[in-house]
Amino acid sequence: MGIMTATGPDTGASIAAIGSLDELYAFLSDHAYEALWTMENALTRQPVTTMRPYIWRYRQVRDLIMRAGDLISVAEADRRVLAFRNPGFSGRELARATDTLWAAVQMVLPGEAAPPHRHTPSALRFIIEGEGAYTIVDGARVQMEAGDFLITPNWSWHEHGHDGAGAVIWLDGLDSPMVSTLRQMFAEFEGAPQSKTHVYSDVLRSGYVEPSWMDRAVFSTLVWKLDDTLRAIEELRGEQGDPYDDVIVEYRNPQTGGPALPTMSAFMQLLRPGAKTWAHRQTSSTVYHVVRGTGYSVLDGQRFEWEPGDTFAVPTWVSHAHANPTSGDALLFSFSDEPAVRALGLYREQKAA
Amino acid sequence: MGIMTATGPDTGASIAAIGSLDELYAFLSDHAYEALWTMENALTRQPVTTMRPYIWRYRQVRDLIMRAGDLISVAEADRRVLAFRNPGFSGRELARATDTLWAAVQMVLPGEAAPPHRHTPSALRFIIEGEGAYTIVDGARVQMEAGDFLITPNWSWHEHGHDGAGAVIWLDGLDSPMVSTLRQMFAEFEGAPQSKTHVYSDVLRSGYVEPSWMDRAVFSTLVWKLDDTLRAIEELRGEQGDPYDDVIVEYRNPQTGGPALPTMSAFMQLLRPGAKTWAHRQTSSTVYHVVRGTGYSVLDGQRFEWEPGDTFAVPTWVSHAHANPTSGDALLFSFSDEPAVRALGLYREQKAA
Amino acid sequence: MGIMTATGPDTGASIAAIGSLDELYAFLSDHAYEALWTMENALTRQPVTTMRPYIWRYRQVRDLIMRAGDLISVAEADRRVLAFRNPGFSGRELARATDTLWAAVQMVLPGEAAPPHRHTPSALRFIIEGEGAYTIVDGARVQMEAGDFLITPNWSWHEHGHDGAGAVIWLDGLDSPMVSTLRQMFAEFEGAPQSKTHVYSDVLRSGYVEPSWMDRAVFSTLVWKLDDTLRAIEELRGEQGDPYDDVIVEYRNPQTGGPALPTMSAFMQLLRPGAKTWAHRQTSSTVYHVVRGTGYSVLDGQRFEWEPGDTFAVPTWVSHAHANPTSGDALLFSFSDEPAVRALGLYREQKAA
Amino acid sequence: MGIMTATGPDTGASIAAIGSLDELYAFLSDHAYEALWTMENALTRQPVTTMRPYIWRYRQVRDLIMRAGDLISVAEADRRVLAFRNPGFSGRELARATDTLWAAVQMVLPGEAAPPHRHTPSALRFIIEGEGAYTIVDGARVQMEAGDFLITPNWSWHEHGHDGAGAVIWLDGLDSPMVSTLRQMFAEFEGAPQSKTHVYSDVLRSGYVEPSWMDRAVFSTLVWKLDDTLRAIEELRGEQGDPYDDVIVEYRNPQTGGPALPTMSAFMQLLRPGAKTWAHRQTSSTVYHVVRGTGYSVLDGQRFEWEPGDTFAVPTWVSHAHANPTSGDALLFSFSDEPAVRALGLYREQKAA
Repeated sequence: MGIMTATGPDTGASIAAIGSLDELYAFLSDHAYEALWTMENALTRQPVTTMRPYIWRYRQVRDLIMRAGDLISVAEADRRVLAFRNPGFSGRELARATDTLWAAVQMVLPGEAAPPHRHTPSALRFIIEGEGAYTIVDGARVQMEAGDFLITPNWSWHEHGHDGAGAVIWLDGLDSPMVSTLRQMFAEFEGAPQSKTHVYSDVLRSGYVEPSWMDRAVFSTLVWKLDDTLRAIEELRGEQGDPYDDVIVEYRNPQTGGPALPTMSAFMQLLRPGAKTWAHRQTSSTVYHVVRGTGYSVLDGQRFEWEPGDTFAVPTWVSHAHANPTSGDALLFSFSDEPAVRALGLYREQKAA
Repeated sequence: MGIMTATGPDTGASIAAIGSLDELYAFLSDHAYEALWTMENALTRQPVTTMRPYIWRYRQVRDLIMRAGDLISVAEADRRVLAFRNPGFSGRELARATDTLWAAVQMVLPGEAAPPHRHTPSALRFIIEGEGAYTIVDGARVQMEAGDFLITPNWSWHEHGHDGAGAVIWLDGLDSPMVSTLRQMFAEFEGAPQSKTHVYSDVLRSGYVEPSWMDRAVFSTLVWKLDDTLRAIEELRGEQGDPYDDVIVEYRNPQTGGPALPTMSAFMQLLRPGAKTWAHRQTSSTVYHVVRGTGYSVLDGQRFEWEPGDTFAVPTWVSHAHANPTSGDALLFSFSDEPAVRALGLYREQKAA
Repeated sequence: MGIMTATGPDTGASIAAIGSLDELYAFLSDHAYEALWTMENALTRQPVTTMRPYIWRYRQVRDLIMRAGDLISVAEADRRVLAFRNPGFSGRELARATDTLWAAVQMVLPGEAAPPHRHTPSALRFIIEGEGAYTIVDGARVQMEAGDFLITPNWSWHEHGHDGAGAVIWLDGLDSPMVSTLRQMFAEFEGAPQSKTHVYSDVLRSGYVEPSWMDRAVFSTLVWKLDDTLRAIEELRGEQGDPYDDVIVEYRNPQTGGPALPTMSAFMQLLRPGAKTWAHRQTSSTVYHVVRGTGYSVLDGQRFEWEPGDTFAVPTWVSHAHANPTSGDALLFSFSDEPAVRALGLYREQKAA
Repeated sequence: MGIMTATGPDTGASIAAIGSLDELYAFLSDHAYEALWTMENALTRQPVTTMRPYIWRYRQVRDLIMRAGDLISVAEADRRVLAFRNPGFSGRELARATDTLWAAVQMVLPGEAAPPHRHTPSALRFIIEGEGAYTIVDGARVQMEAGDFLITPNWSWHEHGHDGAGAVIWLDGLDSPMVSTLRQMFAEFEGAPQSKTHVYSDVLRSGYVEPSWMDRAVFSTLVWKLDDTLRAIEELRGEQGDPYDDVIVEYRNPQTGGPALPTMSAFMQLLRPGAKTWAHRQTSSTVYHVVRGTGYSVLDGQRFEWEPGDTFAVPTWVSHAHANPTSGDALLFSFSDEPAVRALGLYREQKAA
């Protein structure tokens, strides 16, 4: 065991001998100090990030993941995941869509399966196309169809497989960049519980009623079905809508009455024909995914046109407005780190010009 | 206004022509993707950080800040702050003591004053030596004496000055690395409110009683006096104590009954003569400052001896135990990001070998 | 305006002249005092109530409300409600099933309607038989069928009507005795909002997703359908069950993840064939209603046999166990003041002999 | 074990034979029913209570309790308590100052002591005159001096004694009428813990700092000293004050940052010379006690003049305003059931004419 003594080397004489600022800075640099008066003021008036608004085209994404399927070995198939790397990202760590959010597209083919694991990042999944795939969360299995939204809470065991026909493609969303940056990453790859022979259906998983003698966690495998979500949106079509988001609904966790996950919220929004929203910006960052229709979003003054399957990232404090100039509907799925930002007392938003 | 069209350049033919994995990776790199199967698994079993346990010696710190006082101009005097840069830090951003915490020593001389400002990081201050300095938080002024602990909550206006005699030196603690990493930094340097002519005393600031028609925030300038803290510790000297920390008390925010700040907690602990604690590790990180006595701490197996004024950093998930092998008392002040980690559902701790 | 002066009549001489305890007590009685030493100790070791366990037979209840229908005038039809008056009740106020809960059976015939009103008691309703009736809560209309459970939160406007065929009979449950005893009764009979032309369906009312720009209260008309409840119970049939209640589920409010109402919780429980539960007692009181099957409950040692439609009251701190000695299912609906008792920090429960 | 059979006596024929409403009502009355259409509507537009605003004069109270001391035996001395019985109270249960609050004056003479007990009502105490008495709550002893305010939380062991000189008189406040009405009364008279040899001082009991390894309940013996309370009020003298209460402060529980007790809050208010407040009414009820000065309160239009030591009750929904027409200060202590009313979602207040 090494020992660092209380007094350390006696540097008194060396410091007394420092004759210039340059010599002082050299000493500081050698001894794990930094002079604040030489540093650029880190207290910036607004958040500084190298992250940029960006859009990934589904036509390209789909071609790439299909081509990757041809080129990579079967052994690597369970990680056939194409991550969206924000082009502004220049760090040495995890690629990411925004500073705090990971987004990726994953393709699973019939017969493939990923082994169970769990981790401290929370995850969510939005099914882009296909059916026949399933996920098992804490031993409970649910089927996944296009348009479904699912959550995998922090530290719950999860795995997936596919026993249907044709490729299934989904969008993965995680708070892993935030968890990693905060040095909170833990993962486990062995010791998963057996799949349950009985899996509770949505009437129990939705928290409609609750068995008093059982642990709520048993029912944590939550899936929101597209049909139900669309039915809700359809009912709201005649309402005023949100000035920044038109007809938007949040996926609500029935066990808490709050956001889908403690660190991430998720939404589906209908931009009605002709809709054009106001612009605002928030200290949360958001990833959008186009479910239906065509339109455009204006991110910090730049117009991004989109069509189904496209995914775009809105980093923190970037102003954003959405428009659907067509005569048909446009539907956007999105997820955000807003609950985490709020939990730290740091959420703010502003109407933008 | 630039326009990124919905379909973007048609890359279908280029992708079809990709003939090898190398060509695929080149294309991905050029187009803001990353292939997960080529990435080192970011889901590490335990947190990964380059930060290291480290100790800064007060004898050296004091010499350096005094020498700096001689060498730098008066104009820079309001930033005469020596930051503790963890030697494991290799990022491009804010130097820091741990991944999430900033720690620094600041010296203020009679007649000096720093202008008011406010920012989204929360701050705390522990006075190392001297008296006669004061701080003004949201217009309310409090005097600072050696051993006092103060908080500056997120977005409260604060400034300081010194109208006594002799140098005053204090330790600054901020969650600024966390706030900066999460891209939540906002600061303001103009528009501070006037200092109040009347400043409430501790009977009101402590939340002993509360005037029903006034906003609690008016009373947010909190200071915990050393004498009171020591009196509490003295009363607990005969108790069993905490196995990991001996006789430790948390500075409690009277307005909430919880931690000093929503993102940081702070503590004073007495290591009684002969005390030797168990080791544990947590997903929070902590900065310790020696108030009195000599002893040592064992951080991930390495022994760090300390004496009054020394400051040492315990990054996340580093095991730590403390010992006072002397026949006198040892007192440690510390602050931690534990409340922030808990708020995100990520706190865990473990007894270490 | 009358004036009671500060000093009042000078009673000093009268008091000095009091020569015996009898004279003292007479004086006290005349002057709005009470001598504690003459009072029976109100600090009883356990709750004292005159309320008794009691059962009301549906065969009788149904005959009576039908006969009442023949005898009372049409003008009184909107209050054709038969309240269950606990035979232990001897107060001057509102009859009640337990000290805190009101229970009653109401019959509505085709074409009848009750005008809108609102009040501070919270109400719930369980449909015993019939269909075609509807309720309108805060302007939103829902149909009611046998087995459905509905809530009318504190201060929400509500009314009901019947445009189907045949009698509809339901059980009303209110916390009105508690609200009345605590002198918190407010009611309004004019000024109800118009019925909404559009009423949200269960996908929105259940909190499945939530429109971010709308007030949650808009969706407060909650109904839990019997089929869904039974489906949940059927899924749990193979589980261990609760030792005191067998397969019991709580109706959960999706807007909070908590009890159906802030002051009352409601449950449906399946007593499986042959089930015989342990006995316990609680500081909450409960009203049970038999939905299906026959069996018995033992309340403070007395056996109460029951069959469909029967309603029985379990006052506070009365031990209770349930049994289904048949080879068929038994289903009990129940509601309780447990959330109110918990909110005041007074909830306790105990396994009974 | 008696058995009430499921079907009970067959009353079908009897009911069919009922030929008039009078016969019906007789049957209902005999069989534990009540016809709602014959009942006065219990859904009153506003709370109905027989309780009245009332004032008890300290000059009389003091004479009476002294005279009682002469007349009653020593054995009864530990219950030498004079309860304030609201003259509107006509129930069979516990006398009370308002529907929910008990208020009484207790005198303790040197050498007297009350044995330890605990109960589900929460209690508070305000010392009117004398010194030398002490209370022991959960084994911790505190001295009591005129003007001090103390709490005895729900189910904490407490006892008192007096080892000084001269009579000590205090005001007791309890939520026992509410607890009793809700049938939640439990009390214990044996098994109290031994008094602690070490009693923590206010620096720990006030929650200034908190030892992390100890249970908060250890520090629950809270006392607020008059000097500290007056110092806080003096600091606020120059502020605007509350329109309904002038310079009022709430005694705040440092362990929660909330009211003194979960069911009762307590206040001290200064009516500055010449103060005359607006009138309002609330669904909470309040007991006021005059600490210093003379003035008057207007309760539902009736003027009550008061002087030091007087106690007056403001039942729920009674409008009240206060005035100090003198050139000196007036100080009122008060306690209220507001936290309980809020916890049940029933609190409302209104500016009165």
